[in-house]
Amino acid sequence: MDAPKRSKTRQVLCGSVAIGGDAPVSVQSMTTTRTEDASATLAQIHELADAGCEIIRCAVPSARALDGFEAICSASPLPVVADIHFDYKLAIEAARRGAAALRINPGNIGSSDRVDAVIDAAKAAEIPIRIGVNAGSLDKAVDQLRDLELSEKLVRSCASFAAHFQERGFHDIVLSAKAHDVPTTLATYRALAALLPEIPLHVGVTEAGTLRQGTVKNACGVGILLEEGIGNTMRLSLTADPIEEVKVAWDLLSALGMRRRSPELVSCPTCGRCHVDLIPIAEEVSRRLESLPAPISVAVMGCIVNGPGEARTADIGLASGRGEAVLFAHGEIIRTVEESRMVDELISEIEVRFR
Amino acid sequence: MDAPKRSKTRQVLCGSVAIGGDAPVSVQSMTTTRTEDASATLAQIHELADAGCEIIRCAVPSARALDGFEAICSASPLPVVADIHFDYKLAIEAARRGAAALRINPGNIGSSDRVDAVIDAAKAAEIPIRIGVNAGSLDKAVDQLRDLELSEKLVRSCASFAAHFQERGFHDIVLSAKAHDVPTTLATYRALAALLPEIPLHVGVTEAGTLRQGTVKNACGVGILLEEGIGNTMRLSLTADPIEEVKVAWDLLSALGMRRRSPELVSCPTCGRCHVDLIPIAEEVSRRLESLPAPISVAVMGCIVNGPGEARTADIGLASGRGEAVLFAHGEIIRTVEESRMVDELISEIEVRFR
Repeated sequence: MDAPKRSKTRQVLCGSVAIGGDAPVSVQSMTTTRTEDASATLAQIHELADAGCEIIRCAVPSARALDGFEAICSASPLPVVADIHFDYKLAIEAARRGAAALRINPGNIGSSDRVDAVIDAAKAAEIPIRIGVNAGSLDKAVDQLRDLELSEKLVRSCASFAAHFQERGFHDIVLSAKAHDVPTTLATYRALAALLPEIPLHVGVTEAGTLRQGTVKNACGVGILLEEGIGNTMRLSLTADPIEEVKVAWDLLSALGMRRRSPELVSCPTCGRCHVDLIPIAEEVSRRLESLPAPISVAVMGCIVNGPGEARTADIGLASGRGEAVLFAHGEIIRTVEESRMVDELISEIEVRFR
Repeated sequence: MDAPKRSKTRQVLCGSVAIGGDAPVSVQSMTTTRTEDASATLAQIHELADAGCEIIRCAVPSARALDGFEAICSASPLPVVADIHFDYKLAIEAARRGAAALRINPGNIGSSDRVDAVIDAAKAAEIPIRIGVNAGSLDKAVDQLRDLELSEKLVRSCASFAAHFQERGFHDIVLSAKAHDVPTTLATYRALAALLPEIPLHVGVTEAGTLRQGTVKNACGVGILLEEGIGNTMRLSLTADPIEEVKVAWDLLSALGMRRRSPELVSCPTCGRCHVDLIPIAEEVSRRLESLPAPISVAVMGCIVNGPGEARTADIGLASGRGEAVLFAHGEIIRTVEESRMVDELISEIEVRFR
């Protein structure tokens, strides 16, 4: 199982987290608390960090949020990115007050003087800037071009903004150009990766929808890009608790064989052959394994005949039959246990072998 | 937004559903009821059909299940595939009793005489066979080869079984070779598509795990294949209610722009700028749109300033602010409504325009 080859870009540092170059693809999310409320926001950041979030972004929508933002930056366990729209002064202040990076969309910041002032503030603070373009705020000259697909407008906007930053001698940039549909996302990021191979890319499908649809769109859209070696850091937007974004991101990295944080569950879909109610059993095993840091694969199979063979690549597993279950490792049976005790037996076997 | 190009294969018919050739990628699932219990199984099939399932598979684990299977076939609104392991006589009986297709794994059916007897029964019944290979039941000669990756063993097993069927003059075959990890799935199906371009492929990640992890693995693994034009029918295995498999499959087809069954939701992830609790609102809109057959995109945005512009590709949407919301279509504002009435207003606007 080979992980996809990464395209090598420049590397920038967001606090202690490297993005691009040979750094692993990092997992980001965004707080949904009010930034003015530093203690609620810090509580959410701690939860997200525990779930595997590595970089956190907070909206700074007004000057009232700046004190909270500063308090968050000074106490956060994760590097904090300031998300700024419209008001360049907020970006300058956020840089002064401890942001690990800025995210701006030059298309809604205003004149190039204002963009330059933000660039200079980031340079002074020695922090990178993510240029985050989206459909709602393209470069104005580009947006007026007719006959261009949205993906082409996104790419040209990015390229034009990136060139401006580079001409000003600022190279610590990360680019994103998010769309809410997968085909546009793919066309845009493939073109960006080809056109600007040296700039790290922040990938994600934006406004992807509620939990199920948003998970599918992001796993598919971002998964295709990562498998092609495109993308250096990701934020998977879901209209759901941001903890879910982080869990889905790790599931995706794990699925692609790129990074693994906790055990992977192999579990069969059950069928008319299955004599136990496997869904709650698999959910229980999954829950009890969440805190185990070992990157092993664990099988939960509903068929004592097929189970050990079908799951023979799993490091350890159980297959339940009529009243009993077998524990197995790499397809070889370890021992037979009572069905009522099988989850406990599996977990304690895992604790012994892998903790 | 162009849908991926499909690889052209032969076409086979599973009941009234065409697989391969220029047929759209179809959605399958498997019942989890006991096949002996025809009425429970038929009830589940009706639910799955309502959710968009197009082909259903039922396990036939023993001769006791055959009467139920026959009753299911004669009353099912969907073509019914008999899933048979080990016992070739069950496959022959299932073909006689109304199966729209057989799924066997020749690796566990036994001698080639027995496989040939199944082929002859399918030929007599004029139904196709899916050759479904998996890691637990490879072709024995292939499995003994050392130094082969699992994906190579799966491909060689498929190729050897397919050649046997074709030599016997039986060409109505569909192939699957499922693994429970994405890299093996990709390597296997890419090799199968290159080696046997004329045979339709049934794709999916098997034993993919519980709802979230299984959704991620399937959306990513199957999504990558579909985007490359590989795969003619799919079953996304989840350790969850099979209704979820069908919903995820449709979300995936919709995400890739290949097929759409119901409205697509564009909804922002909310942030510190958002003044309403958008998650339940988006979930409510999603739920109320489920029965609407129009393949439109509907936006639910938490920001009255950015919302209409960011979601300008949506056919219709709402963006909520402080106490009020705007309805918009393709980025143009239709009217302002009270926040408390915004979901009702959105739905009735959709009913007027698209029902």
